[in-house]
Amino acid sequence: MKPLESIFNARSVAVVGASANHEKTGHIILKNIIEGGFEGKIYPVNPKAGEILGLPCYPSVTAINDSVDVVLIVVPSKFVPDVMEEAGKKGVTGAVVISGGFGEIGNGELEKQILDIAKKYGMRIIGPNCQGFNYTPNRLCASWPLVTKSGPIAVISQSGTVGAAIEMWAQEAEIGISCFVSLGNKVDVNEIDLIDVFKEDPNTKVISLYIEGVQNGARFMKSVRSAREKKPIVVLKPGTTPKGARAVQSHTRSIAGNDEIFDAVCRQVGITRAKSITELFDYSLALGFLGKPKGNRVLIITSSGGSGIIATDVAEQGGIDVVDLPAELLAELKGALPPQCVVANPLDLTGDATAERYRIAAGIAARCDSIDSLLLIFGDPIPGASEVVGELKEKTEKQIIVAYLGGGDIEEEETIKLNRSGTPVFPTPERAVGALKVLLS
Amino acid sequence: MKPLESIFNARSVAVVGASANHEKTGHIILKNIIEGGFEGKIYPVNPKAGEILGLPCYPSVTAINDSVDVVLIVVPSKFVPDVMEEAGKKGVTGAVVISGGFGEIGNGELEKQILDIAKKYGMRIIGPNCQGFNYTPNRLCASWPLVTKSGPIAVISQSGTVGAAIEMWAQEAEIGISCFVSLGNKVDVNEIDLIDVFKEDPNTKVISLYIEGVQNGARFMKSVRSAREKKPIVVLKPGTTPKGARAVQSHTRSIAGNDEIFDAVCRQVGITRAKSITELFDYSLALGFLGKPKGNRVLIITSSGGSGIIATDVAEQGGIDVVDLPAELLAELKGALPPQCVVANPLDLTGDATAERYRIAAGIAARCDSIDSLLLIFGDPIPGASEVVGELKEKTEKQIIVAYLGGGDIEEEETIKLNRSGTPVFPTPERAVGALKVLLS
Repeated sequence: MKPLESIFNARSVAVVGASANHEKTGHIILKNIIEGGFEGKIYPVNPKAGEILGLPCYPSVTAINDSVDVVLIVVPSKFVPDVMEEAGKKGVTGAVVISGGFGEIGNGELEKQILDIAKKYGMRIIGPNCQGFNYTPNRLCASWPLVTKSGPIAVISQSGTVGAAIEMWAQEAEIGISCFVSLGNKVDVNEIDLIDVFKEDPNTKVISLYIEGVQNGARFMKSVRSAREKKPIVVLKPGTTPKGARAVQSHTRSIAGNDEIFDAVCRQVGITRAKSITELFDYSLALGFLGKPKGNRVLIITSSGGSGIIATDVAEQGGIDVVDLPAELLAELKGALPPQCVVANPLDLTGDATAERYRIAAGIAARCDSIDSLLLIFGDPIPGASEVVGELKEKTEKQIIVAYLGGGDIEEEETIKLNRSGTPVFPTPERAVGALKVLLS
Repeated sequence: MKPLESIFNARSVAVVGASANHEKTGHIILKNIIEGGFEGKIYPVNPKAGEILGLPCYPSVTAINDSVDVVLIVVPSKFVPDVMEEAGKKGVTGAVVISGGFGEIGNGELEKQILDIAKKYGMRIIGPNCQGFNYTPNRLCASWPLVTKSGPIAVISQSGTVGAAIEMWAQEAEIGISCFVSLGNKVDVNEIDLIDVFKEDPNTKVISLYIEGVQNGARFMKSVRSAREKKPIVVLKPGTTPKGARAVQSHTRSIAGNDEIFDAVCRQVGITRAKSITELFDYSLALGFLGKPKGNRVLIITSSGGSGIIATDVAEQGGIDVVDLPAELLAELKGALPPQCVVANPLDLTGDATAERYRIAAGIAARCDSIDSLLLIFGDPIPGASEVVGELKEKTEKQIIVAYLGGGDIEEEETIKLNRSGTPVFPTPERAVGALKVLLS
């Protein structure tokens, strides 16, 4: 295993700067590693404490009578080189430097110093000035907030907050993440290295990127091209306005660069570009779970007339064809559905629709060659919605996109069931259509 | 009290078509009225049942030995006129016809019939083909799903689902609604009547509309103009594409009309137009809770550099000035904040920011005349965020817009506290900036 993979698969970690003060990062990280269920060894390092969170403290990395794979460093920046030296001598593979006080405040010299130490000992550095990492297959949440739900999304982020938000949403939806890596100042490990790792990671189906700049455009394109043969990549890159670009430089000393060029690169290498954090999440779900429909003809099936209209508008505006249904299909649907249903596209099963009515309508539509995807919008408390979708996926190769809203407790239950079974649920018709548009692009 | 107000303030209600089958609307409505905590009298009507949900059943409305203010009608459409006659004779004020099978399936004759009966007896009709209503000050959830959280948003919707979604989101955020009225086919009561009611309702601070068409443009404009003197109105009106407009006609027999004209009308009478269900919710929060900043100069204060950049881009693209800070303010902030902070706009307090650091920064900025509003983005678990905002609101007349993301359990706690205290929290920087843009428009 290469050093970078070893960081994620660590069997023993040390938290240098572990703290008993529950407001300190050195406490929160240690707590999250323990509560996240990490099954390897955990060594808090703090010369002034005897025990933290029930674990005995060590005065230094050197004092640990065991091998250590990863050191998580939370001490003030001036002490980081010494910790790195100790770690290097001990044969540590990876240093995750959470501490700030490096390049971001103009202290490039200190950054060079820790990089030199890492090179000397063959260590990799994540950070500095970062929010750690979380690799759920190893139950190692060396970051915050505590997120433990395992799933297919690898989040690589130059913003700890954006990454954490995606993690949280994925956890709440019971979709989960494979990993979150906070890039920080990228003194060593950058997004390219991580794309190279997570393209091979069997737990990852989609790579979700937040970056503020790309240092090596040619290498970036090469890595992405290779990764794209295996899995989709979604990117959010701000700094598109002059003041945004200026803020990028203050934040991570990155150069936002010409946005049109970046956009062209994305199109050329097949990266999906998100324009907001919400889109970064939605597109990651769509591309991580769903396939590309054979064409752009969609049938919208809903219990909510209003939602059907909204979806129609957004789809048509986005170049998706809310296709006129062939006469035979209309006749078959009319024969099978109660008279109050509006048999057209959108197909309005009306507010008293049950799961059975969706089953009938979608079952008939699934056999029609004039339709490439089905957008199912559940707009009422409809128990059994998840079963209908499950059965439908067995029967058809058409893509099934699901929105659920206005359904109270039943909606919450069915949404979780659908997400768990690999059909992501979008909370509005607009966001579901946005996902479909990305699948088609 | 006028008949329409009496519906919302009913002291006794009958559910005609009450059912023991928990999947039927006639069961769900009865259950929600009971579980919502309605303190008036509740009479299930069903000639075949002895008791439902612990309440004795009556064979007909006539058989109820008490006055009845409102009948909720869930029986098949052909029986509705008889029920209306009985209700009229009994002196009922309002009939809420949930049953479908009227104009929406071409049965305009039946619609005319129930309208004639209502006129004869001076009754008002909500519906038919609707999802009932929910008036939280009277704890009367004669609708679904069950939503009980009282708050300042009046939701008037031609789509039950869109209304229910707004209700649910408002409840989850602990913001709440004053009412939800599902318009259905609008045979009698329409959005204009309801705007007239809710502009006077002391429990309502903002009116949130979903409509598919306006029958009487002149009256609509007159009502809205009068209402706008008292409170803001947000509208979502789809049918903007040809296929969307066609779907509008199928759904509620409404005429979507020329969208550019509707847009011009909105601008003229001061209605804020939302382009999605999410915007309908966000803008209702913004206008229901926040005021108009004196100008378009915003200072972004955040613990998340990335979120600050994203907010900067979206603000600048939307014509909001992420203003260059005056030298004196920069100097004062630099003197008061630790060296790792990026003292600029966005003002990056960095990932180790505490509530105290926000208190210091925002407190200084609040005194600066070159800033009209403060966008506070909390991007980490920051306990005490709600207290900082509360204190700040006491000190300054600048508008405070808040986003919170990536903060785990602390985020959830602080978000609820902020929402409860009247500062709505947006879940992303983009949505917070969208809210600010609407306040400025």
